[in-house]
Amino acid sequence: MSGTTSLPLAAGVAAPVRVKWLAAPSSAAWLEQALAHPELLLIDHAHCERKAAGVALQLMFRYPSDGELAAVLSPLAREELEHFERVQALLERRGHALRALAAPAYGAALAGQVRRGEPQRMLDSFLVAGLIEARSHERMALLAAHCPDPELAALYGDLLASEARHFGVYWVLAEARFAREATVARLEQLALAEVQALTGVLADPGLVRMHSVGVG
Amino acid sequence: MSGTTSLPLAAGVAAPVRVKWLAAPSSAAWLEQALAHPELLLIDHAHCERKAAGVALQLMFRYPSDGELAAVLSPLAREELEHFERVQALLERRGHALRALAAPAYGAALAGQVRRGEPQRMLDSFLVAGLIEARSHERMALLAAHCPDPELAALYGDLLASEARHFGVYWVLAEARFAREATVARLEQLALAEVQALTGVLADPGLVRMHSVGVG
Repeated sequence: MSGTTSLPLAAGVAAPVRVKWLAAPSSAAWLEQALAHPELLLIDHAHCERKAAGVALQLMFRYPSDGELAAVLSPLAREELEHFERVQALLERRGHALRALAAPAYGAALAGQVRRGEPQRMLDSFLVAGLIEARSHERMALLAAHCPDPELAALYGDLLASEARHFGVYWVLAEARFAREATVARLEQLALAEVQALTGVLADPGLVRMHSVGVG
Repeated sequence: MSGTTSLPLAAGVAAPVRVKWLAAPSSAAWLEQALAHPELLLIDHAHCERKAAGVALQLMFRYPSDGELAAVLSPLAREELEHFERVQALLERRGHALRALAAPAYGAALAGQVRRGEPQRMLDSFLVAGLIEARSHERMALLAAHCPDPELAALYGDLLASEARHFGVYWVLAEARFAREATVARLEQLALAEVQALTGVLADPGLVRMHSVGVG
């Protein structure tokens, strides 16, 4: 984590995929598990896209007078829903039904990091949402680079760029409303919490998900 | 309310706009109030589009395994968000900021009609969402026909067809999952409740909103 202003996420899909702002890279063990359960990952991915749309919409409802926020989060939510539909269509073509999955501890652990009072709540919400997008980007890049199924590899390759852009959206929202130094300092704290949420102390190591345990 | 299977909503914008399934038409008094406060209506309209997206997404989260539901409600939510963005852009061009507005009693009154246990909850949720779309369609048609501001009239004219289609989406979801006769009977009950929510017993008659008091 260097804290400079350059593009925050690695654009390529080469291994190892280093994503700036993430305090630790995903482990080979996570990748191995994920590659062993492609359909499960795909169903979880569909849920992740839907949840990401939900997060954006929730922020729009929480801050109903913030037109600038709405102007970027509404298109972001639409894009996540488009991805959801794309993943669901692929699942259907392959004869896999969408089904509910137990969520990994990751989301709840990160939600627990969001401070209650405003404006800290807003800052933390942006940064947590951004970190989740950053981790998704990193893991989709790993899947795109290593998945032996060409259709799945292409799908992850197509979608990962959006995740990087979405980190940028949340970052710009934070930067426009909060002092830069405090924002970077808080992002660094939350990035450590994000890695802890992936170490398995709280999380179920048997669960295979887009955001299941596994950092190197 | 005839309960036949023909297209449920009037396609034209002529006055009086009769929308099948609605138990009573909106009053001239509502239209007069609405036309007297075009910016207020527009801001409320933006919130309505956003809320409609929220309702669709909420149903997708409540029934996470229902792929057919998700396959129609995800595009519906995207379309509502597109409309939200369009209304917001118009507000901005006119120098009006998005701002929080006190909600009319309408939404809460209708939410209170949704039965708690499944599968009744699902049926009622579809029908209530559909009735709100139907009322929006009816009122937008009135605004499109009577608004003296050509840009606003054109906007309402463009958007009202979607509201009719959205009623159809919720109707088809209900029809595919529930017996037709019970569905029609419940829709008729809820349509009466919808009119009651617009009569002012519970609602604030001073509030001017897309779904404020006023049926004839």
